[in-house]
Amino acid sequence: MAGHESEKLSEAHPMNSDQEELLTTPRNLSRRQSKKSLRLKDFSSLKSFRVADLGCSVGINTFFAVRNIIEAVELKCQSQQGLDFHRLEYQVFFNDHSSNDFNTLFMSLPRDRRYYALGVPGSFYQRLFPVVSLHLIHSSYALHWLSKVPKEAIDRSSLAWNKGRIHYTNGPAAVVNAYTAQYANDMENFLHSRAQEIIGGGLMLLTIPCRPNGIPHSRTLPSKAYDLLTSCLMDLAKKGLTSEEKVDSFNIPIYNASPQELEVAISKNGCFSIEGIENLPRVQRQEHDSVSKSPLFTSHVRAAMGALFADHFGHEILDELFQLYQEKLEESSIFELGSSTNAINLFLLVKRKTTC
Amino acid sequence: MAGHESEKLSEAHPMNSDQEELLTTPRNLSRRQSKKSLRLKDFSSLKSFRVADLGCSVGINTFFAVRNIIEAVELKCQSQQGLDFHRLEYQVFFNDHSSNDFNTLFMSLPRDRRYYALGVPGSFYQRLFPVVSLHLIHSSYALHWLSKVPKEAIDRSSLAWNKGRIHYTNGPAAVVNAYTAQYANDMENFLHSRAQEIIGGGLMLLTIPCRPNGIPHSRTLPSKAYDLLTSCLMDLAKKGLTSEEKVDSFNIPIYNASPQELEVAISKNGCFSIEGIENLPRVQRQEHDSVSKSPLFTSHVRAAMGALFADHFGHEILDELFQLYQEKLEESSIFELGSSTNAINLFLLVKRKTTC
Repeated sequence: MAGHESEKLSEAHPMNSDQEELLTTPRNLSRRQSKKSLRLKDFSSLKSFRVADLGCSVGINTFFAVRNIIEAVELKCQSQQGLDFHRLEYQVFFNDHSSNDFNTLFMSLPRDRRYYALGVPGSFYQRLFPVVSLHLIHSSYALHWLSKVPKEAIDRSSLAWNKGRIHYTNGPAAVVNAYTAQYANDMENFLHSRAQEIIGGGLMLLTIPCRPNGIPHSRTLPSKAYDLLTSCLMDLAKKGLTSEEKVDSFNIPIYNASPQELEVAISKNGCFSIEGIENLPRVQRQEHDSVSKSPLFTSHVRAAMGALFADHFGHEILDELFQLYQEKLEESSIFELGSSTNAINLFLLVKRKTTC
Repeated sequence: MAGHESEKLSEAHPMNSDQEELLTTPRNLSRRQSKKSLRLKDFSSLKSFRVADLGCSVGINTFFAVRNIIEAVELKCQSQQGLDFHRLEYQVFFNDHSSNDFNTLFMSLPRDRRYYALGVPGSFYQRLFPVVSLHLIHSSYALHWLSKVPKEAIDRSSLAWNKGRIHYTNGPAAVVNAYTAQYANDMENFLHSRAQEIIGGGLMLLTIPCRPNGIPHSRTLPSKAYDLLTSCLMDLAKKGLTSEEKVDSFNIPIYNASPQELEVAISKNGCFSIEGIENLPRVQRQEHDSVSKSPLFTSHVRAAMGALFADHFGHEILDELFQLYQEKLEESSIFELGSSTNAINLFLLVKRKTTC
């Protein structure tokens, strides 16, 4: 999950002030949904309200999300008798891997914040907090990262060895199944851990890049994008800048679940009820042709995955790799409507049951 | 407080396995004292036990301290009926300035730890945690750092301008008073903040470098040590490597309180009772002469204050400064019994009253 932290860079575009778009962005949708679903009287003690952002990276998005969540809770307090929102104190736990740059995160904390800020190092696929210690959990663009590449995908003796590819999406069924099983296992651990940590009635607000129900992995936008990346790496191998063996042993630990898979995982866990599930509308840009879209798309992919590629192939290949990638994108039909709509951003609002 | 983090390096010598010495080191004294004074039944809910280490630096000492505290709590649980210590979860908050290297701290966390670890960036002279959210607070070798140099000490128009010195200890009364007032103000903020954060019956274990009651600042070991450092800086100024103006505007934000001053601050705050106060015996080393002691002493001072000097005078003077310092120490009578016993390490155990 080396690229986990940097992926957030791709979200860091400034907010568009257009009112209609604002209402449909994750941060506003989150605020609307959490205000509606939060029942503060469900919580036994409200001296402090504890929020965690899982997979926070180094900012700035996490600070926007936290501010919106706190504003939503304050609005809720104002609308409920007997709750003095001026006295409520907020504690916000920023979580990411131990290797995340927490120094940068801490130095970037908003000076006018109205909460006590903490950093929590560790994988969210295991326990991070004591039992019943959180009121609200937020996670945006983090839960598509697996805890690790499935071990079969890099095992030459396995049927699921993912030779000649860097992702499962266009691989044989055995490879897809290995990734699917890894994802199911990771989500089981995620939900089991969170179910212990969150207070009964507490909420989880999750934004996850997914694929639509019924669409095979091979027909999604990521599939086509990874195929192009693989072909770039193979070109570099032919030029002696890397090797086919290195490509064979490299796999991106990302999985694009369907909403249905998430619903199955939540149902299997049994401790959460789904209060809201919707596809976030994608921001429409005016440019539709590959030549205009490719530079921005390339820079997003490089921001998200550059560190992962550098760790495996060496930092020195990055410039040539992504230059080549941009050229191949421009020549491709990847941005045509059919493929780009096969990737969705799922917003999921779940509530911890009081018993399970 | 730029040197705050690095000071801990001077404590980082490995534990001496000699049994008698072990029993008198701060970490064991803390364990003994906290086991004796902790009344777990004072706490209303014991699903998780929350410990903060204030001024933790980057490890390793903070991990030893935390391990000992948790072992003490576990022993206490075992001795009390109705408390299931196997089910008790621990959350440990490691606090230091935002500029502390939390990345190193997080990467150094013990793999076999039995607690959830968090980092808390910020000055402990202000609120860091929500109300009644901590059970035990630990701080070792941190509370002698002031929140800042008193502003009068660097104000040319003030009677308390500390010209020609880098510390208050040998300054005129006005300078000493400015430092004393700053310390009283800082301790007031510290105790007021902690009184809100800690649960009634909760403990604070503080180890603080102090001076004995009744001993003027000018007769303490730090005073003599800072005088020597000042004379080294003046030598460098004569050689053109720094300037007298730079020395005039440099002050070390450290204050060595007496136990009496601490008792007054605690009494004035009113929310804590003193459960234990003692001078920790100093580890006696075999060497008594200045030539043998000076290299280690110099390396401790450099580890503790090097960053502070580098920030003000530039990194390039450090080698020559501390080489000169070591030479002056060797020629000095600083380690003779009379002066070295005028510095003590105070261990203070206080309990949060249930009402105040």
